[in-house]
Amino acid sequence: MLKDRKTIRKYSNKDIPAELLNRLLAESFRSSTMGGMQLYSVVVTRDQTMKQELSPAHFNQPMIKGAPVVLTFCADFHRFSLWCKQRKAEPGYNNLMSFYNASMDTLLVAQSFSLLAEEAGMGICYLGTTTYNPQQIIDILHLPELVFPVTTITVGYPAESPKQQDRLPATGLIHEESYHEYSSSDIDALYKEKEAIQENIQFIKENNKETLAQVFTDVRYKEEDNIIMSDNLLKVLKQQHFI
Amino acid sequence: MLKDRKTIRKYSNKDIPAELLNRLLAESFRSSTMGGMQLYSVVVTRDQTMKQELSPAHFNQPMIKGAPVVLTFCADFHRFSLWCKQRKAEPGYNNLMSFYNASMDTLLVAQSFSLLAEEAGMGICYLGTTTYNPQQIIDILHLPELVFPVTTITVGYPAESPKQQDRLPATGLIHEESYHEYSSSDIDALYKEKEAIQENIQFIKENNKETLAQVFTDVRYKEEDNIIMSDNLLKVLKQQHFI
Repeated sequence: MLKDRKTIRKYSNKDIPAELLNRLLAESFRSSTMGGMQLYSVVVTRDQTMKQELSPAHFNQPMIKGAPVVLTFCADFHRFSLWCKQRKAEPGYNNLMSFYNASMDTLLVAQSFSLLAEEAGMGICYLGTTTYNPQQIIDILHLPELVFPVTTITVGYPAESPKQQDRLPATGLIHEESYHEYSSSDIDALYKEKEAIQENIQFIKENNKETLAQVFTDVRYKEEDNIIMSDNLLKVLKQQHFI
Repeated sequence: MLKDRKTIRKYSNKDIPAELLNRLLAESFRSSTMGGMQLYSVVVTRDQTMKQELSPAHFNQPMIKGAPVVLTFCADFHRFSLWCKQRKAEPGYNNLMSFYNASMDTLLVAQSFSLLAEEAGMGICYLGTTTYNPQQIIDILHLPELVFPVTTITVGYPAESPKQQDRLPATGLIHEESYHEYSSSDIDALYKEKEAIQENIQFIKENNKETLAQVFTDVRYKEEDNIIMSDNLLKVLKQQHFI
């Protein structure tokens, strides 16, 4: 059940048979896709040497080497463009809109796969690092132009049972008819529970900060890193001929 | 079941109770989210006047006015940034990487919601038009800076039972260990089934084209439109302070 889900970062030795993995992936490809174009590809990493190569691109998070299967979900306008060229048609998909459309297709499939894998008793972890170091991943997986690694999911059978992560009160994220601007007391109410979690209080101390928000802005998701990564994203998109 | 799913564009008069909708949305918010930040908001449109206003932004596709509920899933770094400012922290999320990260969060939630709604007997349709006319949607829904409409889903109980749309053979989209470049006979094999569908053959005739690919490149997803929409996307991202 989605409402009980937890991200799993430690996996047992039990392997995922190729037949099962491919069946779940095929099912995930039933997700909605723009104009029926299926603008994605999935690269399956099982080989230990390949995992070792990928590991630094994901800041050596242990899930890469620890999971039986690593899936890199890629936005892919390459395959569709090849088809066009082979059919006397001139593809025009080397632009930002096409990249964003292909990214959407890719993320719907990634999420469908995640839910199917969890239903089948596996655990997954999304790695946001994929878009931080796309060039390394492109080189390792030999992604051609008009292919870009959007997200990575590590998959395996759980060898841990972590606490469920907190979520903001749902009604605070749902807006009736139009966006309701948040008052300062709305914000206090929304973040109250998150700020009261013992682990988060500990987090503030460990990082020598005054507030939990400062842990995000000054340590975990810093402006200077975001700016560097944004420039890098543009550079790699250019290199993959998407812009 | 995902493997039997079909996009539904015609809906019965049966309404979706707010309690049910909010429960499914809350459950979808359990999806993985970057650093637990939940970088999304959902705007619920039920009011007929609001649907009428939104309709042109979606090229007057009949699903907008025909569905009991229209959901606009928005990338949202606004709420998180408000929290930061209220907690003596300096948010640094007005950049492309943050926009892309928030888009990812948003799409995972949209897809989780879609699957939950389908499991509950409803039908959905994604509207790719959301990113073609983001400015209109921003104005109508009063989206503040650092909020951007990523995708729209129309939801209701099905009043049609369409054929399932075709998909490429799944193995052609799965790459073992590294991206396998497609040979010209790979491409022929992959698109053979799609090209043989009677409806697609009819499509070529109606559009006075030689190949199905030309219907995509010359009619449905044209380079000139993509270029205009890419420029527009950048313009609106700037205006929403994301770049």
